[in-house]
Amino acid sequence: MVRAIEWIDAGTESHIRLLDQTLLPGSETYLEVSTVDSLIDAIQRLAVRGAPALGTSGGYGVALALHEGARKGWTADEVKQNIDAVANARPTAVNLAWGARRAETFVAEGFERVLEEAHAIGLEDERANRELSKLGADWLLAQIGDRPLRAVTHCNTGALATTAWGTAYGILHELHLRGRLEMVYVDETRPLLQGTRLTSWELKNDGIPHLVEVDGAAASTILRGLVDFAVIGADRITANGDTANKVGSVALALACARKGIPFVVAAPYSTVDEATTTGDDIEIEERSDAEVLEFAGVRAAAEGVRAFNPAFDVTPHDLISAIVTERGVVEASTAPQPLFPQAS
Amino acid sequence: MVRAIEWIDAGTESHIRLLDQTLLPGSETYLEVSTVDSLIDAIQRLAVRGAPALGTSGGYGVALALHEGARKGWTADEVKQNIDAVANARPTAVNLAWGARRAETFVAEGFERVLEEAHAIGLEDERANRELSKLGADWLLAQIGDRPLRAVTHCNTGALATTAWGTAYGILHELHLRGRLEMVYVDETRPLLQGTRLTSWELKNDGIPHLVEVDGAAASTILRGLVDFAVIGADRITANGDTANKVGSVALALACARKGIPFVVAAPYSTVDEATTTGDDIEIEERSDAEVLEFAGVRAAAEGVRAFNPAFDVTPHDLISAIVTERGVVEASTAPQPLFPQAS
Repeated sequence: MVRAIEWIDAGTESHIRLLDQTLLPGSETYLEVSTVDSLIDAIQRLAVRGAPALGTSGGYGVALALHEGARKGWTADEVKQNIDAVANARPTAVNLAWGARRAETFVAEGFERVLEEAHAIGLEDERANRELSKLGADWLLAQIGDRPLRAVTHCNTGALATTAWGTAYGILHELHLRGRLEMVYVDETRPLLQGTRLTSWELKNDGIPHLVEVDGAAASTILRGLVDFAVIGADRITANGDTANKVGSVALALACARKGIPFVVAAPYSTVDEATTTGDDIEIEERSDAEVLEFAGVRAAAEGVRAFNPAFDVTPHDLISAIVTERGVVEASTAPQPLFPQAS
Repeated sequence: MVRAIEWIDAGTESHIRLLDQTLLPGSETYLEVSTVDSLIDAIQRLAVRGAPALGTSGGYGVALALHEGARKGWTADEVKQNIDAVANARPTAVNLAWGARRAETFVAEGFERVLEEAHAIGLEDERANRELSKLGADWLLAQIGDRPLRAVTHCNTGALATTAWGTAYGILHELHLRGRLEMVYVDETRPLLQGTRLTSWELKNDGIPHLVEVDGAAASTILRGLVDFAVIGADRITANGDTANKVGSVALALACARKGIPFVVAAPYSTVDEATTTGDDIEIEERSDAEVLEFAGVRAAAEGVRAFNPAFDVTPHDLISAIVTERGVVEASTAPQPLFPQAS
């Protein structure tokens, strides 16, 4: 299985290795990241992306800040500023700040302890993903019937988006291994085409039948009865179950509600932001015009035309059939409020 | 105002002139189309597109078949086969066949009579578009309030999609001329980017403020309260009001229904297919994988990956607040069934 993010132990040369996802599927190129600034750059241009992978990036980012600080003689304040910069590199995904703050707790105990915590974040993420994938597959087969299912998914939630295994993708993979997955419709996921470039690459590598569709096709694929359920990941889940995920997700939820089929959100519990009450309180990251208006460096719009480029949308909890974490399945549209915190 | 389609009168050199919309906005190139085969090619690769413009293309296509047949000594059967080929060049848009069949009625009366009828189709289309634009603007201002409105639209429905003036775009243009249009959110409209390439080009030329967004953003733009209404065109409207339009349209309708704001369909009455009872009976055109998987000739997906590429979706009538034609406004979600035929 591909590793999107790894800590490379090499004494004074220790650093983070990232698979540069902006170059997939054309090229498997790894970035050797040895400064906080270059990590933040990689995060902001989405060389590394996906909520759980950002959690691990946050953890390793703190280790990197200590390592770079030791090399360069930073003050404690400078180390702290660099940790904050990692935590705030992208505003919507809660995992990045969560991972950074968790590792930061151990700064007083030194670099080795911080690194140990960052490794633990990654290991827990993989374990959580494998567990939630089983729980999600069980729930879907119980809801829909124990037969090969047809799914639609949005963006990328596989090994590339996580430390390992995947979230929504992990459920699809689990169903496939059980012989219960017939077809996956993959939204291309504009503007950056994570579906076309990343999810279809992972599905192909795992031998899972799939078709890529434009994002605008998802609602009608659902309404026409071509799929049995939709499953997505999450960048932030608030206490009431409202879920921020890649822009375009809520259209699938609206269509599933109309069609009466399950709409499932899958994420490690680290994506749950217990401190935020509802989705109205989530800041939505807006990205550059060029992502929307240019293709492979070629401008598609007339000169002077501007874009509106929100990276995420919020799906209200009443449109979500189930939120699946390693702690269990919460039937969000019907369970008593608040849904979270949930005991582990 | 730009003319997407015109008949050029030049004796034996008479032909159809089409603005090649696949090259916009980079280049304003006109195609001089003097054979039925090249007209069909232009229709199928969307050099000319948009339901009303296809109606006029159907009419002129019959004139072209007679003209080419006269030059090449075709039998009546060969002329008929060529007319059928034009009428059937794209399966979902009802206007193409409607325009061809209307002009075909006069084949026995000769080329000049057929050409006259084709011209009439175009003139009526422009008149219908101007009339429905006024009716649609009146209805929206009465519903929402007499103030500058914010809109979202999908695909291209302007002068490029029609003989002249536009349908959904015509309503926006009318509101703009009345000082009642604040902002238009334009869906880019994958896979062929009619929104980015064509609608924003027209809006820019008409001085109308707008922002281009990815199709996946439309639902959240609506749910976040950034717009007051959505308006789209139509490729076919069945007797019960179900509406086939560019894939992605139904997501806007679902979001508007949830948000409680108007979702408006605008089309000349020639788009109404009185003979088809519901949207379930509409054939949905599927187009090539390459439209989805390639950008500017660069493949975005891994090798071997396939696409699902439906060109249209169907919005059920109960999600449509109003269907606006030159014959009036039908409040589709509440009016008695069937909605059509409607007296002129």
